[in-house]
Amino acid sequence: MSLSCPIPLNDYPNVLLAHGGGGRLTHQLIQKMFLAAFGNPTLELQHDAAQLELKGNRLAFTTDSYVVRPLFFPGGDIAAMAVHGTVNDLAMVGARPLYLSAAFILEEGFPMESLWRLVLSMRDAAREAGVQIVAGDTKVVNKGKGDGVFINTSGVGILEYPGRIAPQELRTGDAVLLSGDLGRHGIAILSAREGLGFETAIESDSAPLAGLVLDLLGAGLPIRCMRDLTRGGLATALVEIAEASGLGIAIEEAAVPVCEPVRGACEILGLDPLYVANEGRFALFVPEAQAEAALERMRRHPLGREAFRIGTVGSGSGVTLKSRMGVARVLDRISGEQLPRIC
Amino acid sequence: MSLSCPIPLNDYPNVLLAHGGGGRLTHQLIQKMFLAAFGNPTLELQHDAAQLELKGNRLAFTTDSYVVRPLFFPGGDIAAMAVHGTVNDLAMVGARPLYLSAAFILEEGFPMESLWRLVLSMRDAAREAGVQIVAGDTKVVNKGKGDGVFINTSGVGILEYPGRIAPQELRTGDAVLLSGDLGRHGIAILSAREGLGFETAIESDSAPLAGLVLDLLGAGLPIRCMRDLTRGGLATALVEIAEASGLGIAIEEAAVPVCEPVRGACEILGLDPLYVANEGRFALFVPEAQAEAALERMRRHPLGREAFRIGTVGSGSGVTLKSRMGVARVLDRISGEQLPRIC
Repeated sequence: MSLSCPIPLNDYPNVLLAHGGGGRLTHQLIQKMFLAAFGNPTLELQHDAAQLELKGNRLAFTTDSYVVRPLFFPGGDIAAMAVHGTVNDLAMVGARPLYLSAAFILEEGFPMESLWRLVLSMRDAAREAGVQIVAGDTKVVNKGKGDGVFINTSGVGILEYPGRIAPQELRTGDAVLLSGDLGRHGIAILSAREGLGFETAIESDSAPLAGLVLDLLGAGLPIRCMRDLTRGGLATALVEIAEASGLGIAIEEAAVPVCEPVRGACEILGLDPLYVANEGRFALFVPEAQAEAALERMRRHPLGREAFRIGTVGSGSGVTLKSRMGVARVLDRISGEQLPRIC
Repeated sequence: MSLSCPIPLNDYPNVLLAHGGGGRLTHQLIQKMFLAAFGNPTLELQHDAAQLELKGNRLAFTTDSYVVRPLFFPGGDIAAMAVHGTVNDLAMVGARPLYLSAAFILEEGFPMESLWRLVLSMRDAAREAGVQIVAGDTKVVNKGKGDGVFINTSGVGILEYPGRIAPQELRTGDAVLLSGDLGRHGIAILSAREGLGFETAIESDSAPLAGLVLDLLGAGLPIRCMRDLTRGGLATALVEIAEASGLGIAIEEAAVPVCEPVRGACEILGLDPLYVANEGRFALFVPEAQAEAALERMRRHPLGREAFRIGTVGSGSGVTLKSRMGVARVLDRISGEQLPRIC
């Protein structure tokens, strides 16, 4: 490996906000810099959580830092989201989340009472998700060198079910399911941040998905792959899975649920709901023969009540969206930054 | 548990730098806020790493965020230190470090080439420590809302040796050993930060301690407890262990190794080397009968060449330092912030 910087410095001498947006520049940074340097078979799978063999046990391990603004928003806050996001990353590989760490980077001058509110919210979110916070860390940075609070949560879970859940397991003809409607988190954040007074208050969908996923696995439903739809939205998640699987994914725009208030807000703001962030939704891939049974099972769970089939895995490549008008367009990673600091 | 903020808001309405300094205010924040809310038997042990039982395996799990300034300093940088610190936390409970996560919070505008230097340094540090980086995350915050780069590393290790290594294992009469001289990291950082031109360049002692610790365990030496000496230095580590063990610790000032350049710098700056941060030193407690064998074994390892016995566990409480003059003084946590953002 060359020791010179693998990111073209003429184009990107400095880190841009879009390097954290989940789109093309994030992908480039991860591929060319982090994977190039740290590369190992586990990391290269680029799944939501690493899957590790440890003396006969199969573990999952994941990390995420949360920098969302504002700290408190309709339907959630940074601390509950830090629990949900990490629990969800473990769930997406089929693991039962067990243990979390919580590391706070506080800015000097941050109100102590706000910190306490966040700590209580984190406690409640961990209880609801059935995980224990077993390790922690606190750092404080000078005023003007942070932004209130950043939280990192890392998580450990155990893989109790046989079989691998990964993009590489996809097969032509598999059904693509979606656990619920899109875009609530992104629009809730944007609305809170910009003080947009939409007529209907939109709440974030931030929620822990492990219970729903373990229901499906416990019912013996064969899940090929799952991914939660965070920054970059459904479109980016599907593009990543299509690439990693070497197969194509075709989805029907008319089948993708977006609630009226989110659709309206997206129209006003010029956003595509397929790219807007969610924190409590996931896509899953099951064999065609089990699609109906999986949907039926999902709809029994509060977080899957609006589950829908949205498409099919095909033999091509990339992600194709068939619009209501019957026109097909190819979905790709977004180039710039759609909504910075959404998670 | 009351829902009102457990930190007295009249005294501390806002977070202070000292809340991250490792002294009395950090202790108060952890005890009254984080432990009160998240409390569970594992977290309450407050060891360097959580020890978990998982289907017959004993795992260790830990997290730390790194906010040190400057990012590059004599003897190290934030990225190598992020590997060392987390590897050391795993080693301190007797675990073999196996897997790390690496989560970066970048500030918009951070030079891409500096990021690449850090990534390469992290790769080298992980290789040297024998750990794989298996999970990662990248976030970017707006210019002026971060400080170049913050790094969180979490780590998973496996406990291969029987017996528990913890403060509660201390017994009266145990020997207190120290793996090397004190204060290099703190003085190296301060010197780099303040542009102090000390005659002799002092390098940080930042290093991965797992190899040395596993040597000791592999030789069958019964270790009661260990702790690496980070923010807060030797004194704070011993105070924490004495409290958790319910026993007293007596150390001899004359036996505590401090190199001449560090001693000189501490005198000029009015710092007590017992409280200055280290990143590659640890204290360990062994039964009196094994003290010589442990020292002999430590000195065979490059990171333990200057290991010394510095004291003895007694039946009292607290930490007592016997000065060169024969005067005894009680060591306590430091009240304020000795050196902010040292790790």
